[in-house]
Amino acid sequence: MDDQASTDLVDEIANDRVRGASELARAALDNLGRLARERPASRSDALRTDLGDLAQRFIQARPSLAPIANLLGDWRHWLERQPSQELDQLRTTAAAEAERLMAVSLAAQERTAELAAVELGGGKRILTHSLSSTLLGVFRRLRGTGTKVILTESRPLNEGYLLAARLADWGIPSTLITEAQMGLIAQEADLALIGADSLLADGSVVNKAGTLLLALAARQAGIPFYVACEGFKWRKDAQAIRLEIMDPSELGAPTWPGVEIRNQYFDVTPAGLVSGWFTESGFSRRWPPVAE
Amino acid sequence: MDDQASTDLVDEIANDRVRGASELARAALDNLGRLARERPASRSDALRTDLGDLAQRFIQARPSLAPIANLLGDWRHWLERQPSQELDQLRTTAAAEAERLMAVSLAAQERTAELAAVELGGGKRILTHSLSSTLLGVFRRLRGTGTKVILTESRPLNEGYLLAARLADWGIPSTLITEAQMGLIAQEADLALIGADSLLADGSVVNKAGTLLLALAARQAGIPFYVACEGFKWRKDAQAIRLEIMDPSELGAPTWPGVEIRNQYFDVTPAGLVSGWFTESGFSRRWPPVAE
Repeated sequence: MDDQASTDLVDEIANDRVRGASELARAALDNLGRLARERPASRSDALRTDLGDLAQRFIQARPSLAPIANLLGDWRHWLERQPSQELDQLRTTAAAEAERLMAVSLAAQERTAELAAVELGGGKRILTHSLSSTLLGVFRRLRGTGTKVILTESRPLNEGYLLAARLADWGIPSTLITEAQMGLIAQEADLALIGADSLLADGSVVNKAGTLLLALAARQAGIPFYVACEGFKWRKDAQAIRLEIMDPSELGAPTWPGVEIRNQYFDVTPAGLVSGWFTESGFSRRWPPVAE
Repeated sequence: MDDQASTDLVDEIANDRVRGASELARAALDNLGRLARERPASRSDALRTDLGDLAQRFIQARPSLAPIANLLGDWRHWLERQPSQELDQLRTTAAAEAERLMAVSLAAQERTAELAAVELGGGKRILTHSLSSTLLGVFRRLRGTGTKVILTESRPLNEGYLLAARLADWGIPSTLITEAQMGLIAQEADLALIGADSLLADGSVVNKAGTLLLALAARQAGIPFYVACEGFKWRKDAQAIRLEIMDPSELGAPTWPGVEIRNQYFDVTPAGLVSGWFTESGFSRRWPPVAE
């Protein structure tokens, strides 16, 4: 596999605007497992170094997404602890370790969705924003329970459409709105619920731009604002997170002289606006989570 | 002029998503002035009744927009006080009264813009949402003063594009964002400023959906949230306002079974979130306005 091929794989993760952070981390792990098997190398330590560098490139491609840093970081650390493996053995075990981490991530996400669905129960009107694979797991489990969902387009790329299609498949009645309508419509919901791309050390939430507005709208309307986020989404350091700015052409707007077009993908919702966090350990009204 | 022609004129006002409330009120008055001259009638009192009914149709076409109710209501009341005019005299004076009201409305709007521009001064970074003819007057006066504007697309019909084009013409640097980005970007602004479609009796603001979110974002970011609104925008009654819901197809979304698409055009921002109101009488931090 040549360098262009690995660059293409990194770019695919860098440019993905639709899959959530955990799904992208698993996709990157899947790529790394394949690269561990196929990457040209004459010696085990050269392969280790090469794979470690590749993992780092995936991590740097999406600095706002904690699951990539956490899961690929775990894989790198595992690599660093294997100095004595032969080349063929390293290829097999590195690929297996990537698959193990993918399975652990998926299990944590599914467990979080399961606990959230049980805790929330049926018959609720849930207001959400953007698309989250954890929330897909929640909604799938709430089929046939009288749940209703209010969801946003999620500009600029309208990933809300994908959620609307899934809800339609599952027979969950829903209302699709522009982000602008979140303020007024919060009064019609029982609660707001979102996934997260990352959790900062203090429990603040990095998620698709507009999430902060949803949290403010929820507080204004007097409804709780919940976050569903397995542990791989938590950033362990207290460093400032770099919020990615994407290609302005995604807005599809005309251009004018002197008009900058901004496409900031994420915002940060302070922990103080969060009513509670669902994780694979359960529901907690406090951060760090304490099972209740 | 047949009934289809008057229905077309009413529909044009009903379906206009771009012009602000005061502009639409003046357009409706312009139509009524023309109808006063051209509408078939054999007697003065029949014409008076007919014109009054037409005015009422324009008012009912846009229930969220106070300037239409106020200015056309004034015109109707004027008509009711002219029982003794001959037919030709009534045609001329009714058209003249419509023009007078248009001029008074425009003067109030321009005076509001002038006072707001003077009070705000140059060098500010102003965050706004939607398109307002009063705010165009403010920005036009702030050309060359170091003013910068952050503006939204204003989905679903993107009237923010029209504002971006005007700011570009005037050489005012600006940043165009999705509504979703208002939360984060409020930290980069010195103040938020909007026009209004209507002011409720308690000073609450009826304006394009998303305005409530902007007010909440401004409070979160610690910047003031100002409203520019001449007196014709104030509703005198305390009745609940009917917030118009427009054609869902304006969102341009696909359709799915069980997915309602909502296109609520306006929201209500409580007076408690407003830092101050600019009117033709000056700036006031309290409602009803007290010049400061």
